[in-house]
Amino acid sequence: MSKKPKNAISPTRSENYPEWYQQVIKASDLAETSAVRGCMVIKPWGYALWENIVNELDDMFKATGVKNAYFPLFIPLSFLEKEAEHVEGFAKECAVVTHHRLTQTEDSLQPDGKLQEPLIVRPTSETIIGESFSRWVSSYRDLPVLINQWANVVRWEMRTRLFLRTSEFLWQEGHTVHSTAEEAIERTQMMLDVYAKLAEEYLAIPVICGQKTPSERFPGAIDTLCIEAMMQDRKALQAGTSHFLGQNFAKASNIKYQSDQEKEEYAWTTSWGVSTRLIGGVIMTHSDDDGLILPPKVASSHVVIMPIIKKEKDRAMVTEYSENLVRELKEQKYNGRPVRVELDDRNVGSKNWDWIKKGIPIRVEAGPRDIAENSVFVGRRDQSPKQRQSIPKDQFVKQLPEMLDDIQQQLFQRAVDFRNAHSMEIDKKDDFYNIFTSEDEHAIHGGFAHSFWCGSPECEATIKKDLAVTIRCIPFERPKVSGPCIYCGKEGKGRVIFSKAY
Amino acid sequence: MSKKPKNAISPTRSENYPEWYQQVIKASDLAETSAVRGCMVIKPWGYALWENIVNELDDMFKATGVKNAYFPLFIPLSFLEKEAEHVEGFAKECAVVTHHRLTQTEDSLQPDGKLQEPLIVRPTSETIIGESFSRWVSSYRDLPVLINQWANVVRWEMRTRLFLRTSEFLWQEGHTVHSTAEEAIERTQMMLDVYAKLAEEYLAIPVICGQKTPSERFPGAIDTLCIEAMMQDRKALQAGTSHFLGQNFAKASNIKYQSDQEKEEYAWTTSWGVSTRLIGGVIMTHSDDDGLILPPKVASSHVVIMPIIKKEKDRAMVTEYSENLVRELKEQKYNGRPVRVELDDRNVGSKNWDWIKKGIPIRVEAGPRDIAENSVFVGRRDQSPKQRQSIPKDQFVKQLPEMLDDIQQQLFQRAVDFRNAHSMEIDKKDDFYNIFTSEDEHAIHGGFAHSFWCGSPECEATIKKDLAVTIRCIPFERPKVSGPCIYCGKEGKGRVIFSKAY
Repeated sequence: MSKKPKNAISPTRSENYPEWYQQVIKASDLAETSAVRGCMVIKPWGYALWENIVNELDDMFKATGVKNAYFPLFIPLSFLEKEAEHVEGFAKECAVVTHHRLTQTEDSLQPDGKLQEPLIVRPTSETIIGESFSRWVSSYRDLPVLINQWANVVRWEMRTRLFLRTSEFLWQEGHTVHSTAEEAIERTQMMLDVYAKLAEEYLAIPVICGQKTPSERFPGAIDTLCIEAMMQDRKALQAGTSHFLGQNFAKASNIKYQSDQEKEEYAWTTSWGVSTRLIGGVIMTHSDDDGLILPPKVASSHVVIMPIIKKEKDRAMVTEYSENLVRELKEQKYNGRPVRVELDDRNVGSKNWDWIKKGIPIRVEAGPRDIAENSVFVGRRDQSPKQRQSIPKDQFVKQLPEMLDDIQQQLFQRAVDFRNAHSMEIDKKDDFYNIFTSEDEHAIHGGFAHSFWCGSPECEATIKKDLAVTIRCIPFERPKVSGPCIYCGKEGKGRVIFSKAY
Repeated sequence: MSKKPKNAISPTRSENYPEWYQQVIKASDLAETSAVRGCMVIKPWGYALWENIVNELDDMFKATGVKNAYFPLFIPLSFLEKEAEHVEGFAKECAVVTHHRLTQTEDSLQPDGKLQEPLIVRPTSETIIGESFSRWVSSYRDLPVLINQWANVVRWEMRTRLFLRTSEFLWQEGHTVHSTAEEAIERTQMMLDVYAKLAEEYLAIPVICGQKTPSERFPGAIDTLCIEAMMQDRKALQAGTSHFLGQNFAKASNIKYQSDQEKEEYAWTTSWGVSTRLIGGVIMTHSDDDGLILPPKVASSHVVIMPIIKKEKDRAMVTEYSENLVRELKEQKYNGRPVRVELDDRNVGSKNWDWIKKGIPIRVEAGPRDIAENSVFVGRRDQSPKQRQSIPKDQFVKQLPEMLDDIQQQLFQRAVDFRNAHSMEIDKKDDFYNIFTSEDEHAIHGGFAHSFWCGSPECEATIKKDLAVTIRCIPFERPKVSGPCIYCGKEGKGRVIFSKAY
């Protein structure tokens, strides 16, 4: 095997966190930037991760009665205008289709066939789905409508970063219609709970569930709930949101129903979404200076078998042993699905390190010495690369699901510990300003400050302007204590979470 | 139960086939037109069908070593121009993005932020994926590259029909890169075989595999292979295509590799796709004048349980019996996947007919009389609505997979018989012209004419102009006999298939 490079990933997290992030993605082959401004190419190793997230989430949605459907990519400009806050929120960053063909002029191909009304490539689909809902719903018997869509959306971003902020991204958007506010609020909360479960139990990312302040709400929503996670640079990542839309979009799209009292009423709607941004969260929560670390439940693959063939005479024996091992492992199940196995029979010295950088949970080497003892040489990605051990083959096959589960738990616990270590109750304004200020702005600093807030948008805005720190959420779970607002000193009821954020 | 309407679908197939098609879709709730020109809304019953097709096909792709990835929605205009025939083929029908924001002017919201270079919403992705491949491939060791993408694409159609021809549709597009022409040709054929297997074994649609004539090739391809099916109006539907692209796109996108002789060579590429058009094929192959008929292997759901409650005192008993039945059925497997079960406990007289129109393979009624005998009352969608029978409950549960399989086989056989009945060898020009001509152009006529063709594009073009009949394919399987071209009388080597087509 080749020697370990000084750092598998350069720079390290502490040297330059944003650049480390880009290098982890490159070294693991998850994705790359494309020739199209702000759009990414999700490569097979990244897309497999997304597929696993999709499969788990889709099952969870369906278990709550949600059904999938598909709506148009394009939204007529006039639809977007129907909800004033909504259009205001998305007008500045949308792709506009104005023509429907290209025509050859003297020296170049030019847009031609101007559309009567421009079409917007969907940044989110409340208005176009609302148009269908207005036709689907006429009586209380038609309710609730519980729909989800897996789709690509476009928000024209000027500064992009792979997975975290791209002009096109993949996501799901749920849209539901209810006859009462109570039922819609309950659904908003239910879907946030699904997201929290996905984050914690599958992505191994601990999250804080809470409510956004008015200034951070989805454009047009009455209430936005969210899950917030801490990355290893101590910044927050908003990992999913669920919106109670009240009757705003029902009024904009004319979604009405006849009640059981034969009265015509506007319906109550919700929407909720998570996106490929979650992959950014997975990367930044778990990975280390040797590269990506994938939580087993959604890992692109679970285990790689690397035959070690140094002499040609060993080839047949080692190959057979390895192929049998692949077969045996594929018959095992983990998390209710078949174990995912790679066989890497390339003859290159970088093999072991390639898989470390790709973040596969378990690496297995099998060479003549292992075969002589009917064993395998096993490395776990959550442990040091040096910590590999020899395990009897049959025992390894049998215990693989358990080992994967142990890695899953370790990663979650590590992330909880990290978040706890960088969360603090701060009650003094000076302390607060100090925590979020650093002489070297690239140095990792800050964290989650649990502080009191008086509720004034002005205090919130000033802190944002001074420190680029925002209220991530008003957590659902918080002690019922009051204290002085961290900015103005007036009474604040319960602590909120302040942090820098992605 | 309510009485059967004169025809569940009006008009019937023989009265007006195109309108029957629209009404089947409406009555089954598969999809609807949207407010956006040419774009459809795929409703939950239609999307579930698509999901099942996707799942089967995705497994088949992966079994051949293909991996999924995702590429940008937008293609810079200059990319499209790289392959001359390609841009010519798609320029007339593409959505063009010219601006990246909206700005409020005095009285309206207007496109703003003009792009330096217009972006095309992908009609197909050879050129944008080729750009990535040119970076992924540098040595023969990097080959083959076997990639698939599940995506939405846009081709601006002036005359649209749900599923068959829509401006936006969902599809998969496979793209592969190889070091030799032979290997690329082999892959082109392999993927066509996958499509034929999907069509015949899953969609129960018999298909003819063959080669397109030069005039019907994909723009930029060296060779286009296809599967062609006969619909119940005797027209052909091209259900999937697989293209050998030679070095055309490798040259356009600069996909080169260093051979094992250390020589720099252009690679050889393929592409292949099927789309939501397949759903149109399923509808038109199997459905009857009572509505949709779904082949069990991909059916949105397999079986519906309808509790029959006429007296309130029976409610608890009937409900419990029905819910237990649902549970027992869900534990069964068909085609390696859990049986999909619906429970319809609505109290409406149209219940049985609603499910007939939705095409679910098996309908089960359970009322007090059935419960007394521990039986169920079963209707099969491939049989007459009157042909329902009482079956002991335990026997029904156990035999359900077998019954589904029988329906699957029946539908396939019925479609084969239909195609055979309307396929004929035609050697006389007058007969040919008569077959494809009808006094009432709405009357169902024509079929698959197996006739000789001299190979001249002129004969092909004249027939197309005269009759709107095209050569669907040069079938792979055909007797090695020669005969006079159906148009000009010159020698044609082997029969080709002529038909009207979608």
